[in-house]
Amino acid sequence: MPLIVHKYGGTSMGSTERISNVAKRVAKWARAGHQMVVVPSAMSGETNRLLALAKELAPARPTDAYSRELDMLAATGEQASSALLAMALQALGLESVSYAGWQVPIRTNNAYTKARIESIDDKKVRADLDAGRVVIVTGFQGLDDQGNITTLGRGGSDTSAVAVAAAMKADECMIFTDVDGVYTTDPRVVPLAQRLKSLSFEEMLEMASMGSKVLQIRSVEFAGKYKVKLRVLSSFTPWDIDILEEAKSGTLITFEEDENMEQAIVSGIAFNRDETKISVLGVPDKPGAAYQILGAVADANVEVDMIIQNLSKDGMADFSFTVNHSDHAKTLDMLKTVVLPKLGAQAVVGDTNICKVSIVGIGMRSHVGVASTMFRVLSEEGINIQMISTSEIKTSVVIDEKYMELAVKALHKAFGLDQAPV
Amino acid sequence: MPLIVHKYGGTSMGSTERISNVAKRVAKWARAGHQMVVVPSAMSGETNRLLALAKELAPARPTDAYSRELDMLAATGEQASSALLAMALQALGLESVSYAGWQVPIRTNNAYTKARIESIDDKKVRADLDAGRVVIVTGFQGLDDQGNITTLGRGGSDTSAVAVAAAMKADECMIFTDVDGVYTTDPRVVPLAQRLKSLSFEEMLEMASMGSKVLQIRSVEFAGKYKVKLRVLSSFTPWDIDILEEAKSGTLITFEEDENMEQAIVSGIAFNRDETKISVLGVPDKPGAAYQILGAVADANVEVDMIIQNLSKDGMADFSFTVNHSDHAKTLDMLKTVVLPKLGAQAVVGDTNICKVSIVGIGMRSHVGVASTMFRVLSEEGINIQMISTSEIKTSVVIDEKYMELAVKALHKAFGLDQAPV
Repeated sequence: MPLIVHKYGGTSMGSTERISNVAKRVAKWARAGHQMVVVPSAMSGETNRLLALAKELAPARPTDAYSRELDMLAATGEQASSALLAMALQALGLESVSYAGWQVPIRTNNAYTKARIESIDDKKVRADLDAGRVVIVTGFQGLDDQGNITTLGRGGSDTSAVAVAAAMKADECMIFTDVDGVYTTDPRVVPLAQRLKSLSFEEMLEMASMGSKVLQIRSVEFAGKYKVKLRVLSSFTPWDIDILEEAKSGTLITFEEDENMEQAIVSGIAFNRDETKISVLGVPDKPGAAYQILGAVADANVEVDMIIQNLSKDGMADFSFTVNHSDHAKTLDMLKTVVLPKLGAQAVVGDTNICKVSIVGIGMRSHVGVASTMFRVLSEEGINIQMISTSEIKTSVVIDEKYMELAVKALHKAFGLDQAPV
Repeated sequence: MPLIVHKYGGTSMGSTERISNVAKRVAKWARAGHQMVVVPSAMSGETNRLLALAKELAPARPTDAYSRELDMLAATGEQASSALLAMALQALGLESVSYAGWQVPIRTNNAYTKARIESIDDKKVRADLDAGRVVIVTGFQGLDDQGNITTLGRGGSDTSAVAVAAAMKADECMIFTDVDGVYTTDPRVVPLAQRLKSLSFEEMLEMASMGSKVLQIRSVEFAGKYKVKLRVLSSFTPWDIDILEEAKSGTLITFEEDENMEQAIVSGIAFNRDETKISVLGVPDKPGAAYQILGAVADANVEVDMIIQNLSKDGMADFSFTVNHSDHAKTLDMLKTVVLPKLGAQAVVGDTNICKVSIVGIGMRSHVGVASTMFRVLSEEGINIQMISTSEIKTSVVIDEKYMELAVKALHKAFGLDQAPV
């Protein structure tokens, strides 16, 4: 009997009526002859409600002990929604049981509020499935080796679902969410954006890391690592939609190179407004200069994304990199006061009005000239490229933020993404 | 270092501000040199909110599997409030950690929604106390031997607190609640009702079983069985009230016969409007008649409180007993259709307009004539006594409900309870 994992987000679990609809959908899959494990998020708003209470009581300087209690608190949201879903399934005449993370158990490290799953014991869940029960496993949470509750961070339920699917060698992990799949780009920016029928893990990873919020990025990494077949689909279709139709809906994220379908060269256009650019100008071109700058940035716990270095005249180099918006001021300040004097550079300047636009596609591996097409299209629109970085399946550029929409639309059209797939 | 258990009810935990006040009170006790274990209820309204959600999803015929999920759901309320209290203590600079019932663990049987505590492992809590931490233990819940969460029923946090105090041999268990102690009778009925400074377990048990809602009756049984010194006191005094004054406030419920204080003969007047009377009239006086009636009632899962049998003329007996209001119609019906024909009795009649009034006092053991004083007082007020039952420390009568207030006031005065204790 095929084993399917369903994951439902907070919006899908937002009221007893919605929970009841989730139960009906799950029941449809169970009655069609599948073993079912369901991983729900907390009811929408619940996690925020709990964390707001915690914030009112937080100590001035949050400690590890405080984070432990935060996890203890936040984990109740999924425990409650899981129990409610089990009840709703029972009301439909199915046998069902819910387990909190510690009951499975889902073992994690002890990094409270952002723990990582280490192992999942599937014995208990397997026994229930074999006894004909639908098993609900709380998303978002686990148990450390000291018996404390941990949580996996925002969006962690996606990772829980994929991890359970991996541990149980599920035939597919279906992520039901409030969008109906992964799009070639954000439909709010390009109305002609098309839903992708399938996508490779590498592509999804690039899309996700660029701010496409469909899936938590760690869940995609996890699915890639353990070869879990992952499908993103809508929980807002009627629950009684034909099961064969539903099984093919949404976007399939797969580890198999699909030989039947000729992949588009570029699958999607991703963009990100969360980054800013910092440049260190007039750096004496000596060995170790890059390390002095980036080492100091790393020591300040700031993550750097793109990096370029231009050799200028007179043996001086300009050095630019991008950081997250929230780290901008701190990084700028640190470079000016600590690094600049030591380095003998001329100036440190920041630019917060930039954005990053990427073309992503597994087809780029075997097709030349994709990047140059991108540069040509941007040039034709009069858009200046400030930085470039490339990987095997992605080319990213940093441009002025005001051109973002124009760039995304032009690239979307140029790579043939405006047409629905045949 | 003395070990004290504090228990705070849902009203005391009703907002972050109130939780913060609870933390300040606990901190005062901790800083005065006590090892502290705190057992909080869920934030007021939370358990009702959760159970209302469950009700909307309940299957037509609730099963054991449904009750399991109910406990899974309801237990989240205390887990959340416990974590919040630990945070509030940390914010005051104390080390604190919270444990859910399963983490302690508090082991129970598997009677979901009304489980009974079987054992408490105090190793973990003891280690934290010895490390200088304030330990928060969720009330209301435990773990069965299959690893399922169980709850102890409404008011179960009182029992959790007393059980923890018993397991850890605490010096005192202080139940902070929204009343400031146990009264000689309900002050809403008798404005002159006086707070009792102390009370024996047996008396408290009789008062509690008569509807005085100050403590869950099982917590009192537990305290009596394990000789836990129990104090009921107000959580609405300012948190910074002098600790020596607070330590003597409220009502102490004790297992020690207090030799210093001459006990009042009658400690309190309890009453109960929740019972109704059922009479089987004209029962042929043959062996086994009582069994035929009460056996059938017990088989219908109806609990019987008082029972009297009057031999009437002609070899016929009248048989009366009281049951809870909620069982009245069902019991009457069952007797009329099933028992009456078999028994050859003349009639079954019910009376829902009765009430039970009791005088309770450990001093009754050694004083004669207490019951007759009660009967005289009622007779002087023209109140007819319909049924009487007595135990070592209690005498109860059933009277017409309309005389209840009159009876309670008259007895309260006659036994000298209108005056404050010296």
